[in-house]
Amino acid sequence: MSIRIGILGYGNLGRGVECAIRQNQDMELAAVFTRRAPEQVSILTQSAAVCHVDEIESWKDKIDVLILCGGSATDLPEQTPKYAKLFNVVDSFDTHARIPEHFAAVDAVAQESGKVGIISVGWDPGMFSLNRMYANAILPNGKDYTFWGKGVSQGHSDAIRRVEGVKNGKQYTIPVEATLEAVRAGKNPELSTREKHLRECFVVLEEGADAAKVEAEIKNMPNYFADYDTTVHFISEEELKKNHSGIPHGGFVLRCGKTGWNEENTHIIEYSLKLDSNPEFTSSVIVAYARAAYRLASEGAKGCKTVFDIAPAYLSAQSGEELRAHLL
Amino acid sequence: MSIRIGILGYGNLGRGVECAIRQNQDMELAAVFTRRAPEQVSILTQSAAVCHVDEIESWKDKIDVLILCGGSATDLPEQTPKYAKLFNVVDSFDTHARIPEHFAAVDAVAQESGKVGIISVGWDPGMFSLNRMYANAILPNGKDYTFWGKGVSQGHSDAIRRVEGVKNGKQYTIPVEATLEAVRAGKNPELSTREKHLRECFVVLEEGADAAKVEAEIKNMPNYFADYDTTVHFISEEELKKNHSGIPHGGFVLRCGKTGWNEENTHIIEYSLKLDSNPEFTSSVIVAYARAAYRLASEGAKGCKTVFDIAPAYLSAQSGEELRAHLL
Repeated sequence: MSIRIGILGYGNLGRGVECAIRQNQDMELAAVFTRRAPEQVSILTQSAAVCHVDEIESWKDKIDVLILCGGSATDLPEQTPKYAKLFNVVDSFDTHARIPEHFAAVDAVAQESGKVGIISVGWDPGMFSLNRMYANAILPNGKDYTFWGKGVSQGHSDAIRRVEGVKNGKQYTIPVEATLEAVRAGKNPELSTREKHLRECFVVLEEGADAAKVEAEIKNMPNYFADYDTTVHFISEEELKKNHSGIPHGGFVLRCGKTGWNEENTHIIEYSLKLDSNPEFTSSVIVAYARAAYRLASEGAKGCKTVFDIAPAYLSAQSGEELRAHLL
Repeated sequence: MSIRIGILGYGNLGRGVECAIRQNQDMELAAVFTRRAPEQVSILTQSAAVCHVDEIESWKDKIDVLILCGGSATDLPEQTPKYAKLFNVVDSFDTHARIPEHFAAVDAVAQESGKVGIISVGWDPGMFSLNRMYANAILPNGKDYTFWGKGVSQGHSDAIRRVEGVKNGKQYTIPVEATLEAVRAGKNPELSTREKHLRECFVVLEEGADAAKVEAEIKNMPNYFADYDTTVHFISEEELKKNHSGIPHGGFVLRCGKTGWNEENTHIIEYSLKLDSNPEFTSSVIVAYARAAYRLASEGAKGCKTVFDIAPAYLSAQSGEELRAHLL
């Protein structure tokens, strides 16, 4: 029997989850839940239901894992604990600083309900966290580096669009190549914000806006741009649509560590992602962890988990024998 | 209280384990066991004992985890099951094709003795396997690539040294850069053996040996060199000692996968290692898994495990709270 998945929230992430489920033969999409009027939400999977979120409780025994595809600012802090009462849940909560309190809230409910809740799944937090953790455990004497990009930052793109005179805009975060090379060469540099990432902006101006004023306002924006070397390109709306409508992302996690009785040997561990679609890759990670949630729950596990707490084999559709024979 | 570690076999790997233990505050080296006369084995850790392997049984309650540092050809198939009767054990068994039978042999004993045995720990098998497995679970629709090097292949260096007229030699396995780039670019190439790796040999000739004949014999050696583009450099013994006495290694694991309803998006996951010392890095991985063996055993787990079966958090000296706060 397939693992029956529910999706709450049908934006880029929800749609990505839907696509990922299609690639996993042991899973099926049972239903998508939305706050919108269901008849206005058109999904891709013909066999799945579209329901208003108010009906979700009636699906209690018809769904094995509910994937929460809302945002970290307001949706998930409320939704993940709430639905862990009824379902095994997986979310992609990504406000790093608030993970401990989110974990505690989800754990309290899931311990009580006997469900499994896996939080902060995706690539950062998620696969990047795993790689930081493995590398730290292996090389306790070392230094970590995380670089993001090249990719679209939604927050920085939003910040550009709030500038007066800007009609539309997109921002790419780009690791500084020379810095990456220094880290790879084992030089263990201490890095300022400016030395790690560049910011490149593509801006469509409103009719009659002052380009120089817009550029200065972007470049001097505190927190978002002032601490970075920022480039601003003015382009047409058509050009923006044609060349900058994707949501690529990626990045690099490196650890440089020393071993040997006198720390005479240097090792570099590097993990990198180059993603055409940030939400689709995040969704693909989430779906693998939905399989883990299902299996853990089947074994009687309960409570909140993160990627650190879950043995890798739980993510795979293959058996232990198959994994040992083909991937070990 | 520290985790008390025993080492069986004091070659490059055993010494690497000794160095790695020193970097982990929650561990201590209790004893090194050897088949040699103990008084002839000089170790670095003053507080640890050096004992003949025949005495090992008397250490049953004085060691939490025994790390087996022998070879995969003859030592480990015998030793790992044998000592899993008495100890929690970790080995680095790396004959990929024989892992299933080794697993079965260790599991049978460890289930009976109530001990934990973790096999095939290191980087390949080990960290590379983990990365293959995670990437396969996340991107089920994709293609795997593993490249080794640049690094010293012990087996190929041995093969060179068996050629008549060769006094000494060292062989480096090197990934073909253009092929790596094609994989990174998402081109999903089908690759022959020759297209993946180069082999570079540094050879010291015996007095009066025929260089051309030696070179031809190396380049045409079946299995080892005939299927590769091989370069042979003749150098002096001094040069070999000076420039080629290290044991560096490393490599790359890549997966290129598609997502999207019509598989319209491409993602590249890449994991790479650049290691000054192959045995010291392998040892560092083993020591992290020794911590996992200890903890799993403390929780009542038993039987044979691989890296696929062990939740990442077990490897780290940090608590769940610390990991969530700092590395997630």
